[in-house]
Amino acid sequence: MKNRPTMNDVAAEAGVSQATVSMVLNQSQAGRVSAETSQRVLDAAKKLGFRTNVHAKVLREGKSRMIGLIGDEVATTPFAGEMILGAQQEAWRRGHVLLTVDTAGDSRLEQAAISMMQSYRVAGVIYAAMYHRRLDVPTGLSGIPTVCLNAQDPAGSVTSVFPDEEAGGRAAARVLLEAGHRDIGMINIGPEGSTLPAASGRLKGFIETLDAEGVPFRAEWLRFGTGGYEDGLRGGLELLTLEQRPRAIFCANDRTALGLYYAAERLGLSVPDDVSVVGFDNQALLTPMFQPALTTFQLPLAEMGRLAVAEVLNRGSETKRLAVECSPQLRQSVASVKVYS
Amino acid sequence: MKNRPTMNDVAAEAGVSQATVSMVLNQSQAGRVSAETSQRVLDAAKKLGFRTNVHAKVLREGKSRMIGLIGDEVATTPFAGEMILGAQQEAWRRGHVLLTVDTAGDSRLEQAAISMMQSYRVAGVIYAAMYHRRLDVPTGLSGIPTVCLNAQDPAGSVTSVFPDEEAGGRAAARVLLEAGHRDIGMINIGPEGSTLPAASGRLKGFIETLDAEGVPFRAEWLRFGTGGYEDGLRGGLELLTLEQRPRAIFCANDRTALGLYYAAERLGLSVPDDVSVVGFDNQALLTPMFQPALTTFQLPLAEMGRLAVAEVLNRGSETKRLAVECSPQLRQSVASVKVYS
Repeated sequence: MKNRPTMNDVAAEAGVSQATVSMVLNQSQAGRVSAETSQRVLDAAKKLGFRTNVHAKVLREGKSRMIGLIGDEVATTPFAGEMILGAQQEAWRRGHVLLTVDTAGDSRLEQAAISMMQSYRVAGVIYAAMYHRRLDVPTGLSGIPTVCLNAQDPAGSVTSVFPDEEAGGRAAARVLLEAGHRDIGMINIGPEGSTLPAASGRLKGFIETLDAEGVPFRAEWLRFGTGGYEDGLRGGLELLTLEQRPRAIFCANDRTALGLYYAAERLGLSVPDDVSVVGFDNQALLTPMFQPALTTFQLPLAEMGRLAVAEVLNRGSETKRLAVECSPQLRQSVASVKVYS
Repeated sequence: MKNRPTMNDVAAEAGVSQATVSMVLNQSQAGRVSAETSQRVLDAAKKLGFRTNVHAKVLREGKSRMIGLIGDEVATTPFAGEMILGAQQEAWRRGHVLLTVDTAGDSRLEQAAISMMQSYRVAGVIYAAMYHRRLDVPTGLSGIPTVCLNAQDPAGSVTSVFPDEEAGGRAAARVLLEAGHRDIGMINIGPEGSTLPAASGRLKGFIETLDAEGVPFRAEWLRFGTGGYEDGLRGGLELLTLEQRPRAIFCANDRTALGLYYAAERLGLSVPDDVSVVGFDNQALLTPMFQPALTTFQLPLAEMGRLAVAEVLNRGSETKRLAVECSPQLRQSVASVKVYS
């Protein structure tokens, strides 16, 4: 392995002093160096593959161009990657890099990560949850610009960026109403009374929209679950064998919708002819398993990541609550129903 | 937001000079400071929440305690998270942090990432592929200790850490042989002649083991695919409707196995009574969808991540090829068959 070239090597190559190299490459007092000499230094640096030492720059400027990203359970969720990629791309675009720590839910590791990020003089920290929830921002972050990602800080001490779950529920209801459906059920992703934003928000937006459009929601067509395939299967078998059964079902995530598809198949019913289905999350790994293709909503993962970085770098004095809309992915699982008026 | 405390603040709190604080906190010439004074400085630093500036340490020591991790398509694979978590945990254990860049397959971003990591004086770089393949290590990394993760460097210029695909194929064959099966088919995850290690390695290990155990593999019971659910469905419908059909099928990944389950269900056949199934990857998101639970193999994702970090930090002069075994997850999809001898 060859040694990294130093400023002295660049100086020797360019035939100038090390001080001149420093002025040019660090862009300090560069006006004191002629354009011709400056170009010679840049050419020499390029030829030798010299790279400035970022750490010296941090010491001069007192802050680094790193952004810390602390996430829980990044490894075990299919959503983390896109959020982190969106954050990284925005950071990169603004000349920053991400220093990412997956705490795997370990609070001691979280403390250590915060301490490490302080040592690295990060420009800010993105505190990310891998499923949308409310959380307390660790006190160790109180001295650092912080933004909650896919999470809400109920104390309002920092800006939060999260999916607009209620708007998602409203949009799901509209997709079914606009196709002419009136007999509409729902399988939720939390137990009854769940306060998880995705469960409570999607349910609230969905039911309120039906009620507002004169299609009152029937409680006997609501089932609860835990967001898993098996809840869709069980809830689907129950709802689809009722004497009076719904003709359309909103599953509050794609895994649940896949279970519902399976329930329909088992009962000899066809999607969408016998039952229309709307999912949520647009989970890529599941997409090919839906036949016919599932109408669902894309979580704004990359966009939330980008926004979080923008907020952590552009921080003003006020904290914000940024609810980002989920976009509809209209496919083949919703049949149009003739409405007799 | 309060300002970060400086060494001068610590010095004032402890009633000593800034030089003394520096000696104690940077552990340089600490022998020149009495134990009592040293403790006073440490107490003051703790009280004020002072943290050393890592960047100053890097400048003194000429190298950082960061390890770069460059990955392609991290965002879109279910395997990345566990690999990166394993790498992070090992890095952390050894006092290092990971600086991760997801290039999303963009070679210009990759060049920029390498350049950035040079500037940060990383101790080494892990060059990770999100699906196992052979690749060329970028020339920009030639001056930095580098390890390939979930990838093989055919040039042998750096150490490679990857799953032992052939051993996985052999183990899958043994699971079926030991249950008494003789009529055994396979649905592979690449097209015929694929040189992707997962496709070619699992196939080779599987067929060689059957042949070696006196159960010659029948070419008409082999199907190819692309690793998707639809390949398992199509291949399953073909294999299970042959006049002479296999009683056990190895699907070279779990998504394919899920398609095969669906094909069996559609044909009114039961897993494992009518057909035994072995998968590969142990993909967590799919696990609950297999009824009965699928016997499969766990990719050594976290272990490979740990090994890559260990290798990048403990580098010797020789490069290694470290093939890591996949571990069997024995569940309910393989029936024992009575063997008449």
